Amino acid sequence: MREVLAAAHDWHLRRIPFGLATVVASSAGSITGPGDLLAVDPTGDVRGGIPAGCVESAVLDAAAETLRTGRARLARYPVGDDGPWPARPGCAGIIEVLLRRVTADHLTARSLAALAGPDPVAVATVVGGPAPFAAELILGRDRTEGTLGAADLDGWAADQAAELPAGAAVRRYGHRPGVRVLFQVAPAAPQMLLFGATAVAAALARIGADLGYRVVVCDPRPAFATVARMPDAHEVHRAWPHRMLAATPVTPDTVLCLLGHDPRYEIPLLRAALTTPAGYLAVLGSRATHEARLAHLRADGVPEAQLARLRAPAGLDLGGRRPVETALAIAAEVVAWRHGGTGRPLSGLTGPIHAARSSDLPAAAAR
Amino acid sequence: MREVLAAAHDWHLRRIPFGLATVVASSAGSITGPGDLLAVDPTGDVRGGIPAGCVESAVLDAAAETLRTGRARLARYPVGDDGPWPARPGCAGIIEVLLRRVTADHLTARSLAALAGPDPVAVATVVGGPAPFAAELILGRDRTEGTLGAADLDGWAADQAAELPAGAAVRRYGHRPGVRVLFQVAPAAPQMLLFGATAVAAALARIGADLGYRVVVCDPRPAFATVARMPDAHEVHRAWPHRMLAATPVTPDTVLCLLGHDPRYEIPLLRAALTTPAGYLAVLGSRATHEARLAHLRADGVPEAQLARLRAPAGLDLGGRRPVETALAIAAEVVAWRHGGTGRPLSGLTGPIHAARSSDLPAAAAR
Repeated sequence: MREVLAAAHDWHLRRIPFGLATVVASSAGSITGPGDLLAVDPTGDVRGGIPAGCVESAVLDAAAETLRTGRARLARYPVGDDGPWPARPGCAGIIEVLLRRVTADHLTARSLAALAGPDPVAVATVVGGPAPFAAELILGRDRTEGTLGAADLDGWAADQAAELPAGAAVRRYGHRPGVRVLFQVAPAAPQMLLFGATAVAAALARIGADLGYRVVVCDPRPAFATVARMPDAHEVHRAWPHRMLAATPVTPDTVLCLLGHDPRYEIPLLRAALTTPAGYLAVLGSRATHEARLAHLRADGVPEAQLARLRAPAGLDLGGRRPVETALAIAAEVVAWRHGGTGRPLSGLTGPIHAARSSDLPAAAAR
Repeated sequence: MREVLAAAHDWHLRRIPFGLATVVASSAGSITGPGDLLAVDPTGDVRGGIPAGCVESAVLDAAAETLRTGRARLARYPVGDDGPWPARPGCAGIIEVLLRRVTADHLTARSLAALAGPDPVAVATVVGGPAPFAAELILGRDRTEGTLGAADLDGWAADQAAELPAGAAVRRYGHRPGVRVLFQVAPAAPQMLLFGATAVAAALARIGADLGYRVVVCDPRPAFATVARMPDAHEVHRAWPHRMLAATPVTPDTVLCLLGHDPRYEIPLLRAALTTPAGYLAVLGSRATHEARLAHLRADGVPEAQLARLRAPAGLDLGGRRPVETALAIAAEVVAWRHGGTGRPLSGLTGPIHAARSSDLPAAAAR
């Protein structure tokens, strides 16, 4: 998704029009779902994809055709017994795709930019019923842009957007036949706060940014707290960690990791961190180091309930020890924390691979 | 490591000298060990790090000083009770660091480039005893470069390098006092073969390259098998996967993933893949899809022992469903496969976090 949005932004800046396919609905299992994007430029350069091999090429052809004709439409791809593609268990149903041409002055170019940005936003798009087809409404924190064609419909869309979880979903307004509206909802990017500008932090910043986090790295050492060392972080602070944390808003979505080994700030930082609502709070270091840390915090009067929140050592047991492997182990634990995963191999488990689509989208789903 | 090597290569190309600190030995727990690197350029730009917070700044100062003076030396940093840094459990011992100035025409610049490259190489460096201090010998597949100062020592080093596992270690030649030699051994980069140029493949290519894999993506669809879609892959092939696989050397280090959902090549590819020695062999898709796949392969006469090698669905159970999350789940399973990790949270386990340093280094440790 991020890759499509980045490409779209690049094409937008270069004023290159492109064809955009947006999945509106799918009854073909969890393979694809609302909000999945595929984009193609006039040279045939494709970004994103509809992760359903049997229809992806057909969607690409349709997106390229829409780029030529400019005619927005809703296409339906039957897969399985009813369609032209081989019937396969787990891949039978209908995929509905909205096809549009996006030009530099098109509202969709701005809605894609908004969905890619750090601020919360919702985009409502008419995909059927008695309203202008493909009409769009961008609902930002401070302003709205566009219209679905009628004030009551816009008001309803704003109410829906405020209530919908992150991700994409279709809602219907009115009765017989009603207007069908696709909602793409992107909340504010959650924060990943990394203390200690180490090699692990550099690797974790890269994966965290790919996961949709706004990554902030903080270290008091001037030589280490540099953008050159942390090229994928959104912010690099040269500051005392506990002071920087005191000036940073923390929410239950926040990921906070202590990756340094610097006793000069460790205890003050942890004491402050443990009073925040950060949802994932982890520290590196050996088990002996952690025992000493806990003893220190206990002596300072930190309650056991707070201490129990610390994940130590951070990460899943993957067994690697290089910085990139440690970062991967932490990122994997973060994803498992967000989605309730066990960390065990999927091949050794039974039951559904994913939770229901509408509820398991992470906070930064649309990024 | 990779980041230091990339920075060193960049400085080398721009003919910028830099100070290089290489950990030779450590008795301070698993926090740092032989082969860890820190580099600093004349502007104070630091790359890499000695992941031992208590000494990192001191090592940086020493590297910067060596850059000024040009005098190679071995520095010893006592940590814990005996040293100037605070005593902490799990962080007591001695860290030995080789400090050198590296200029564009310096042999070390070429040895760093060799360690960063895809081919197997070993670098031997004198760190003590009756031989020229910091003398280097690069032992490549087809050629050697440099000398440790004597033919018998060079011959011994070549024998050692052929036997040492990937990673870094110190060996002693001769008796009383003997020559101490640091060996940095990098095998050929293992391969990650990704079939299906999907969004999951793009995300996995990025993480796989960071993990030290040589990543190859293959898809028969011209619009999808493009470098633009797979910017982090080392090779992108537009070919029928089973044909491309037939022309590719596969070893027990090889990671092979089927990420597409294209029935046109899936069965021929899996039949071929199951006869290779690939160590990690995984497929995506629902459990129902996999049952149908197994039924097809069984009907084709593929033995159960081969079918049991397939990890399906690929990845650890992290619970996410976005392409980047699926890629992360697969990468985490790959690391756990290489190192014997369980995937369970480290904070819920007991015992050592890492296996012994010398044996747990992955095949691409030095990249």
